[in-house]
Amino acid sequence: MLKNHLAACLVLFMTSFALPTASFSAGADVSHAKLANGLEIVVIPDRRAPVVTHMVWYRVGASDEPRGKSGIAHFLEHLMFKGTEKIAPGDFSKIVARNGGQDNAFTTQDATSYFQRVAKERLPLVMEMEADRMANLRLLNEDVLNERQVILEERRTRVDNDPSSILSEQVQAALFLAHPYGIPVIGWQHEMEHLSREDALSFYKTYYSPNNAILVVAGDVEAAEVIKLAEETYGKLPAGAPLLRRDRGIEPEAIAARRVILRDERAAKATLSRSYLAASYTTAKPREAESLELLASILGSTGTGRLYKKLVVEERKASSAGAWFAGTALDYGRFGIYAVPAGDIPLEALEPLMDAVVAEVRDNGVTAAELERVRNAAIADIVYDADNQTNLARTYGWALVTGRTIEDVKNREAALTAVTLDDIKNAARTHLDMRRSVTGSLLPDPKKVAAGAATKKISVPGPGGTIH
Amino acid sequence: MLKNHLAACLVLFMTSFALPTASFSAGADVSHAKLANGLEIVVIPDRRAPVVTHMVWYRVGASDEPRGKSGIAHFLEHLMFKGTEKIAPGDFSKIVARNGGQDNAFTTQDATSYFQRVAKERLPLVMEMEADRMANLRLLNEDVLNERQVILEERRTRVDNDPSSILSEQVQAALFLAHPYGIPVIGWQHEMEHLSREDALSFYKTYYSPNNAILVVAGDVEAAEVIKLAEETYGKLPAGAPLLRRDRGIEPEAIAARRVILRDERAAKATLSRSYLAASYTTAKPREAESLELLASILGSTGTGRLYKKLVVEERKASSAGAWFAGTALDYGRFGIYAVPAGDIPLEALEPLMDAVVAEVRDNGVTAAELERVRNAAIADIVYDADNQTNLARTYGWALVTGRTIEDVKNREAALTAVTLDDIKNAARTHLDMRRSVTGSLLPDPKKVAAGAATKKISVPGPGGTIH
Repeated sequence: MLKNHLAACLVLFMTSFALPTASFSAGADVSHAKLANGLEIVVIPDRRAPVVTHMVWYRVGASDEPRGKSGIAHFLEHLMFKGTEKIAPGDFSKIVARNGGQDNAFTTQDATSYFQRVAKERLPLVMEMEADRMANLRLLNEDVLNERQVILEERRTRVDNDPSSILSEQVQAALFLAHPYGIPVIGWQHEMEHLSREDALSFYKTYYSPNNAILVVAGDVEAAEVIKLAEETYGKLPAGAPLLRRDRGIEPEAIAARRVILRDERAAKATLSRSYLAASYTTAKPREAESLELLASILGSTGTGRLYKKLVVEERKASSAGAWFAGTALDYGRFGIYAVPAGDIPLEALEPLMDAVVAEVRDNGVTAAELERVRNAAIADIVYDADNQTNLARTYGWALVTGRTIEDVKNREAALTAVTLDDIKNAARTHLDMRRSVTGSLLPDPKKVAAGAATKKISVPGPGGTIH
Repeated sequence: MLKNHLAACLVLFMTSFALPTASFSAGADVSHAKLANGLEIVVIPDRRAPVVTHMVWYRVGASDEPRGKSGIAHFLEHLMFKGTEKIAPGDFSKIVARNGGQDNAFTTQDATSYFQRVAKERLPLVMEMEADRMANLRLLNEDVLNERQVILEERRTRVDNDPSSILSEQVQAALFLAHPYGIPVIGWQHEMEHLSREDALSFYKTYYSPNNAILVVAGDVEAAEVIKLAEETYGKLPAGAPLLRRDRGIEPEAIAARRVILRDERAAKATLSRSYLAASYTTAKPREAESLELLASILGSTGTGRLYKKLVVEERKASSAGAWFAGTALDYGRFGIYAVPAGDIPLEALEPLMDAVVAEVRDNGVTAAELERVRNAAIADIVYDADNQTNLARTYGWALVTGRTIEDVKNREAALTAVTLDDIKNAARTHLDMRRSVTGSLLPDPKKVAAGAATKKISVPGPGGTIH
């Protein structure tokens, strides 16, 4: 049971998905509709193969959980595979597989998404099944208790057995004083242990309804055909109660730099990482989020980025160094930098070098050549991302579920093109401010380091802490 | 209006109230009763003068606030002075004063308390008035908006204009990752600005009722007479809806030391302070909270404490140093240590000395002579505290509202007497652990320090952040 489900819920927690950025020539054909019951529909033609990607996005994530019930959004995501009156427990993914398809789901702070990739003739089938579990989930207490063991095991594997993941979790918890982005999507273990069938059903009844969902279909389909099918399946469901605006709070002004120091003898290498509270694509001023994204590349690209060049190449004090921007979020974005020391270089020797790189871009900005290099790469990525049907669907789903528009997606290239050197400098000055930061130090057992344990890549967060 | 109210709500945010610890010879006469509508009554005879202290404690505080409404518990406390059908807005305190009495109120994370000290003949009057506003609060929108300016001004004065208070607030926010003790009682400014009449009334209707209140009367009174009076006033009010258990969440295991660094040019002196997550009197094992309290004296007493002796006397690196234990709380206690550097000694030079003092008690405990000295002082304080009628009433109110009993208060001397050297060492080992700590650094403008600005006492937290 455990293995089956873990296999079904493939890990998508990868850097390559950190920035859903597709825009593409076919963008002009994207259709947007809404059913009478409130279900939003996006259809993205992609005719290169006779397959479709069918995704349902709910406008609810871990940051909407009741206090003390951390993990319930993700737990419910698992339980959605437990069946309905028509589908026996555990059969959902089997039916999809039997029909030659793949399915999966993921939960983030802001959204929960379910998707299948199937041959285009199977679209009516997966729509029927997805609409069915949107309204008719049935949960046996035994299944719920078994699945709770699965999510607890998932937490142990993904977080508690991995010191760098523990540090990431602790840094994020320290970054947010008021907003629930500080609570891990997977949940705090002691709260997960008490999540019940009633908790899951209450969350389901509150948030799972057509008027709180977005259907995204990408593939070899016509918009009219998809909308007709949706009408015949999802259209039969009644609208749920109107949902309130998602007001999850605002951070108090960030005025004091924070640090988190984790000593863990299981860590193979020390690492230094810093997260800054930043704007997200949804909350940023024009060009601000694009500037942060481009700045993350300028600072962070392996080989050519400023951190790598300074810390790894010139000073030879780090074995790796980088930066990232997690900007796809309803409320706050996060900007991160990190470095892993070379040999037995202490973190205290690394941090001033990192600080100097940040101070340099705050004071003097970046060069036109750097901006052009990362901008060209980002624009090229738009095309590469569009080449993958799942990425394509995901890009539109992410945009809409975080309060952006189809136009925003289509205008991505123009927005990147509009970024100026001043924009980058302003974004760095505003957001790369120590008062908005949490610096995390992972300190391994000194004996192990002396013994020359193998190095280990530190985990870089995806958008809003996606987990499955 | 502003001045009047600030004057009425006297500041009780003082270290001397940090540990409500009275027990006394008269303790045997304390009466405990409950009305049919759920109101708990405690009567404490104190016949030295013909006065009474009348307190009503509600089992609700800032940590029970809805998410995003920080400050509403304290705001409502202010608004409770705005009148009812019988009392015109702002007249409550005037009537008490006209009758020769004083009144006040305070809000903490766990409780909200209203009290009057009057001549004993006036007890029926204040009971009538307090019962009236328990059920019949009337709020004009204009009064609410004016009072919101008052609490915002209170925040500016108490916190935002005082760098050491800002640091305390930031340290406490960083100490709690899941539990609302991290949210300041006064509220986050951006949330306070939006608190409305409806928010206040909703909080009032949910939590202000006889079955959620404790009446404490200390003074020259007979229990039977007080209970009869209470029956005639509070007894007429209907019980409110039953209240749920106060489950405000549990902290995830503390695994990573945290730091907060505040640079503020208004600070006259650098300070180093550290808070450890600890047990409270309510959650501690037998003798554990008493041990932490005694340990705070052993480490922290001015002149004789270990921190003072090491940092100020021997090493001459600090101008002051101390420790405190805030143990009166429903959920968590907090243990704190702090030091203010002498001259231009950097905090980096101070911290290893502080660490060494802590390491010494963790490794080797304290001496029998130290334990006897602070124990004798604590037992003597029981008598001194009992000498003040308000302290007396407060001690019983605090105990009951945080889930302790009258027996616990009466047994305080015995509990202190039972503490062993091993208890102290165990308490230090368990709680004075860096992983459970947040270390705060306040760094002033270097130019000002060089110019020799006057030193300033750092603020030491009272029980659960009491404010008025």
